[in-house]
Amino acid sequence: MRKAQTMRAVGKSFPRVDGEVKVTGKALYTVDVELPGMIHGKILRSHYPHARLLKVNASKAERLPGVVAVLTRDDLASLNSYYGAAYKDQPIVATYKVRYVGDPVAAVVAVDEDIAEEALTLIDVEYEELPAAITIKEALSLNAPPVHETSTHGELMGYRYLPPEEFKGTNICYRFRYVKGDIVEGFKKAAYIFEDTFYFPRVQHYSMEPHITVAHVETDRITLWASTQDPFTLQHHLAEIFKLSVNRVRVIVPYVGGGYGGKLSVKIEPLAAALSWKARRPVRLALSAEESFKTVTRHPAQYRLKTGVTRDGRLLARECEIYMDTGAYADAGPRVTQKAGYRALGPYRIPHAKTDAYTVYTNTVPAGAFRGFGTLQVTWAYESQMDIIAEKLGIDALEFRLKNLLRKGEDYTPGDTPVDCNLREGLLLAAKGIGWNRRGRGPNRGKGLSCCMKDGGGTYKISSAALKMNPDGTIILLTGTVELGQGARTAMTQIAAEELGVVPDRIIVAQLDTDMTPYDAATNASSSTVVMGLCVQRAAQDLKRQLLRPAGKALKSKAESLTFRNGRIYNKKGQGISFEDVMINSFGTKGGEIVGKGSYQDKKSRKAVLGSPTTFWEVSWGGTEVEVERDTGEVRILKYVSVSDVGRAIHPIQCIGQDEGGVMFAIGHTLLEEMVYSDGHLVNPNLIDYRLPSFSDLPKNFETILLENQNGPGPYGSKGTGEGSLLPVASAIGNAVCNAVGVRIHDLPITPEKLWRAMKEKAGES
Amino acid sequence: MRKAQTMRAVGKSFPRVDGEVKVTGKALYTVDVELPGMIHGKILRSHYPHARLLKVNASKAERLPGVVAVLTRDDLASLNSYYGAAYKDQPIVATYKVRYVGDPVAAVVAVDEDIAEEALTLIDVEYEELPAAITIKEALSLNAPPVHETSTHGELMGYRYLPPEEFKGTNICYRFRYVKGDIVEGFKKAAYIFEDTFYFPRVQHYSMEPHITVAHVETDRITLWASTQDPFTLQHHLAEIFKLSVNRVRVIVPYVGGGYGGKLSVKIEPLAAALSWKARRPVRLALSAEESFKTVTRHPAQYRLKTGVTRDGRLLARECEIYMDTGAYADAGPRVTQKAGYRALGPYRIPHAKTDAYTVYTNTVPAGAFRGFGTLQVTWAYESQMDIIAEKLGIDALEFRLKNLLRKGEDYTPGDTPVDCNLREGLLLAAKGIGWNRRGRGPNRGKGLSCCMKDGGGTYKISSAALKMNPDGTIILLTGTVELGQGARTAMTQIAAEELGVVPDRIIVAQLDTDMTPYDAATNASSSTVVMGLCVQRAAQDLKRQLLRPAGKALKSKAESLTFRNGRIYNKKGQGISFEDVMINSFGTKGGEIVGKGSYQDKKSRKAVLGSPTTFWEVSWGGTEVEVERDTGEVRILKYVSVSDVGRAIHPIQCIGQDEGGVMFAIGHTLLEEMVYSDGHLVNPNLIDYRLPSFSDLPKNFETILLENQNGPGPYGSKGTGEGSLLPVASAIGNAVCNAVGVRIHDLPITPEKLWRAMKEKAGES
Repeated sequence: MRKAQTMRAVGKSFPRVDGEVKVTGKALYTVDVELPGMIHGKILRSHYPHARLLKVNASKAERLPGVVAVLTRDDLASLNSYYGAAYKDQPIVATYKVRYVGDPVAAVVAVDEDIAEEALTLIDVEYEELPAAITIKEALSLNAPPVHETSTHGELMGYRYLPPEEFKGTNICYRFRYVKGDIVEGFKKAAYIFEDTFYFPRVQHYSMEPHITVAHVETDRITLWASTQDPFTLQHHLAEIFKLSVNRVRVIVPYVGGGYGGKLSVKIEPLAAALSWKARRPVRLALSAEESFKTVTRHPAQYRLKTGVTRDGRLLARECEIYMDTGAYADAGPRVTQKAGYRALGPYRIPHAKTDAYTVYTNTVPAGAFRGFGTLQVTWAYESQMDIIAEKLGIDALEFRLKNLLRKGEDYTPGDTPVDCNLREGLLLAAKGIGWNRRGRGPNRGKGLSCCMKDGGGTYKISSAALKMNPDGTIILLTGTVELGQGARTAMTQIAAEELGVVPDRIIVAQLDTDMTPYDAATNASSSTVVMGLCVQRAAQDLKRQLLRPAGKALKSKAESLTFRNGRIYNKKGQGISFEDVMINSFGTKGGEIVGKGSYQDKKSRKAVLGSPTTFWEVSWGGTEVEVERDTGEVRILKYVSVSDVGRAIHPIQCIGQDEGGVMFAIGHTLLEEMVYSDGHLVNPNLIDYRLPSFSDLPKNFETILLENQNGPGPYGSKGTGEGSLLPVASAIGNAVCNAVGVRIHDLPITPEKLWRAMKEKAGES
Repeated sequence: MRKAQTMRAVGKSFPRVDGEVKVTGKALYTVDVELPGMIHGKILRSHYPHARLLKVNASKAERLPGVVAVLTRDDLASLNSYYGAAYKDQPIVATYKVRYVGDPVAAVVAVDEDIAEEALTLIDVEYEELPAAITIKEALSLNAPPVHETSTHGELMGYRYLPPEEFKGTNICYRFRYVKGDIVEGFKKAAYIFEDTFYFPRVQHYSMEPHITVAHVETDRITLWASTQDPFTLQHHLAEIFKLSVNRVRVIVPYVGGGYGGKLSVKIEPLAAALSWKARRPVRLALSAEESFKTVTRHPAQYRLKTGVTRDGRLLARECEIYMDTGAYADAGPRVTQKAGYRALGPYRIPHAKTDAYTVYTNTVPAGAFRGFGTLQVTWAYESQMDIIAEKLGIDALEFRLKNLLRKGEDYTPGDTPVDCNLREGLLLAAKGIGWNRRGRGPNRGKGLSCCMKDGGGTYKISSAALKMNPDGTIILLTGTVELGQGARTAMTQIAAEELGVVPDRIIVAQLDTDMTPYDAATNASSSTVVMGLCVQRAAQDLKRQLLRPAGKALKSKAESLTFRNGRIYNKKGQGISFEDVMINSFGTKGGEIVGKGSYQDKKSRKAVLGSPTTFWEVSWGGTEVEVERDTGEVRILKYVSVSDVGRAIHPIQCIGQDEGGVMFAIGHTLLEEMVYSDGHLVNPNLIDYRLPSFSDLPKNFETILLENQNGPGPYGSKGTGEGSLLPVASAIGNAVCNAVGVRIHDLPITPEKLWRAMKEKAGES
């Protein structure tokens, strides 16, 4: 491992490589793409949560001047019109029924958006309303209306667990089951058993940039400019939908204004492409913010967990029953459910465990991947229950956690990668940060801690990168990692710069284009620094290898004696040669290129529960002190200390930015955010009625601590980050609130009204 | 060498891969690029052939509403504002003087083209007129006004011959000298000495798509969409002009509507980029057809050649004196002059030779690269003189040529690649094609032959290509060869398909983008089939190598026993595996990619006159029968037979298309085309006054014969083509005209008026 003091690019907070173009407004996003003859799409959406489609007649709309085409179910016959991240259960437009308010029924393309909008009103649709299942409870009830007539719609891609036969005909479309030890024995031995149910609300990603796609379909080729996090997956899905080979779908990714999982897999892109395919013209389909609310959300979840402990406070057994509301279509629901189920145990030693995690269809907007990917729902529950148990046992909540934490090197589950960090270290830092020993500095004030862990890096990743050296010795990096705002381009540039011994300024990151950019599975699961970082590092090493021979020849030195620094290659006598001269020596003129390639492929393992061992453990700790306003129920965060295990911070300020952003994000679902359904209708799909956290909601005192123990598998010991800091927020705040006012809230968000009513109720009781 | 009958992709005339998008109007050209905030440029051009610039004041123009910026010489201080293919002698806009009518003086960008045009009239320019040198004669006269105050403006890039000191202060900016044998001795031994001077006119490329560039300059990055033939060269030039590293210039090449050399190197791109740089907005600079006439042309040339022969008709000695009029700026002039000088001897055995070829500045539009690259000027002369000599010696013109033709394997010059084809074979075919033994079928009818040769493939080529296999086994080809209409994408696809044993339909060619496309020197010099073809073939072989191991494992066979056909890999037992399955076996899922790479690099050689041996000899023969209308002087081409040595036709119909197009092109400068200057002004820069050949000008009987002797260094024995067929046209027609009416025209084009006057004069004489 190279020592920090010898590093020149990694560990330094350089200006972002995309900073200037973004702040000056010059950065090009998908919305900036203009094509000759481009027309504009609008979507007609269902106003019913659940209805049979009796008639869809577009003839009046088609006659409106300016309308180029209307896409309805009648156009889908020649396509594979059902798609989805896990199951192919979602049609491009509704076929025989609609399944949620907002479900696309038809779409119009016209010369401008106003005409397209007007044409929507001319589409004649007749519905026959069906009973709807809006909540998990309704969906699971006996005689619940089936959202899908069959609960399985194809194979769950890449996963070992398929929905069991027994759920056929119900609204359960997937179950993840995991068993460890002997749960019955475990509970038998327990001195105390705790059983609690927690609820996590439906929230939206709310990327600054709503979903948008520009599609240009030629006879045998689709070109898409898309705001997407995984262009290669999208390419494969579209190829399948349009019955084309993969090389006939090209996805170009301009800058992306936020993703958070909402732009993974397939969303509006098939509809945009189908419109272009029908209209034979390029089409822009740009959703409004409101429509993004009706496209994808985080899974609302209900988690009943039953935990058995010994008298002296050791966890013995846990039974988990998790229901994830995936809405009208599965999207990534089964995958999220699997991860939620797998992560439900928490960072603790629990010898006996049993998990059942279910994906449930309801007549609501689909839920898919979302920063944290199932972990937020379960960390909220298990870290709340830890405090409940500690209090009941009369053990300090910190002490109770320390007693049960897994040790570094210990298995989370047999066959998976052992825990790769010291969990105590971070927890103690968080505790120290909020002055854990000085509890209760005043009335209505309280402190809370939380410690969370998720398997990071995604499941079964394949990735590659290339570094091209130009004739003047400057470098272009080709990477499939999408710059979503997270700063990946900067971090990747630093890794390449460090490895090649150049300043980051010598490297440019090329645009992402599936025709030319090396393959990458997806920008998700905090994976980029490790997975793509390794590809970039290996590409740099490959490039160096190729430069050594001509450099050695020029310096009359053995290749293995040469070193790279300051943009030159040196022999042991200190004689150096510039990259430019090496290039000219190699090609005999100022032309040509040398390309280094690097790739990464996860291992598969039958021993691992999820089929492939965890790439790294993304671990995070939170400590907070809050004050509750008794008269209003308002929670003020006086202090928040976030501790994240990043292994090695490639770009410390970006890591801190990710960390702080994550906490702020989580303050949303902890205190503010919830998509509210009434009568099957989403009533608050806008920023007036749906409150995102703003800077005024930030902790008064906010500290981020990056743990850098070089314990990650990524370049220079780095791990991924970006999701971790969200995980402890809700439970730390919930625990602090309870510590402050003695009231335990089980259902997020902890709104002032909810807390005020709970305090009232408790006051009434006592 | 693989036999034709076993080939499945090469040698077949598949539909063009770009055919459908082009005929349906869906193909995107640079003019189709739209960027947010894009504004439009117009150029203020000099109305004087030569003048000092006393004042350029843009303040009034800048105040016109809608004008965003005006670029004048005052903006150039921070740039390397002089550029050029050979010398850096051309400023982005005129600095202290203007040098031709049309020379850019300033440029405006405005929200639309009309406003930009209007603003041009508001720019206040004061000139002080200078005497001008419009013709070669004027430019070379004593006390000629110097077009440039010093005749050398930097090093001639990549060339060994620099302009001699003795020409300093004159309008000669380059001389190529070549000496072989002993010219004095040679002439001493000659029985007859012939001395003739020929003139070749100034003609324009007239691509269907005029020059156009869209430039988007950010603070430290330039992105250009350009109609260019050599994006990588352009990238390097722009980097130098804007003082950026190469990786900070990105050139994207949409479809290009014709090039013919006119879009090589640097033309309007620096001005487009400078406008965007000043305006801080994306800029489209689209020239009109008239402006293309004022941007670049073919070199007018004067060639005095003195040839000594023996009594029995063997060539003994030749002295060449060539003046190439490069106009106001050198552009590729020195390179063109060098090639003209080198090619001046023709395909004949001439033991003693001396060439002096000069590049001359004049106050006319710059001349640069143009299909044939200096060869047309000299073939016109030497193949006309061959007939003059034969007639004088009383030897049949065919016999005389056969007697002197170089043999296959013989040196053209020592150190260069020996002649790689049987020159007799093609000449006899051309002769047979026009029934050479049946001369003079009627009054005013005559026949002519011509045999020409040029070194093909360009000087010192470096090139590379990549083939990417997708998870479904389909393929994307990355190539830097520009699709100009010549069909390169189709031919490259066939080569890859042949090598991989798939149908061409399985392969897609990616767009050209210097950030990502493998380096290629240029699309010029008929080089692509050989140079890029070899890269593609090698990339395919590299890809196959990488597929063999997983395929062998799956088929339980040794890798070396496997064969590729029908999109599958077979072992000797006839068991096969699809590419898709090989990919899935390799990656364990439907993801990842395998990339094959191939490259090409010319040899350097001190022994070769031009520093590197000729890649292949591009040889062509023409035979024609014409009829002259005595009353009008009009020449009708009754029959034309074009014979081209293509080695192996990758796509026969495209080869024939290239060949026929080349002949038609050359009919232009032979009979119709000439840019006419009067008083320093170009008087016919439009298609009314400048007559391009149309289909009615084609030979009544037109035959193309492709010689396929697999004698080329390209894939499957192919050679390059596309320039060859132009070379013999003028001299074959000139010889036929002389044969028909006994009048020898020395100055192209052979217009009716010119021929009528010459016939009149001859009649007067006799």
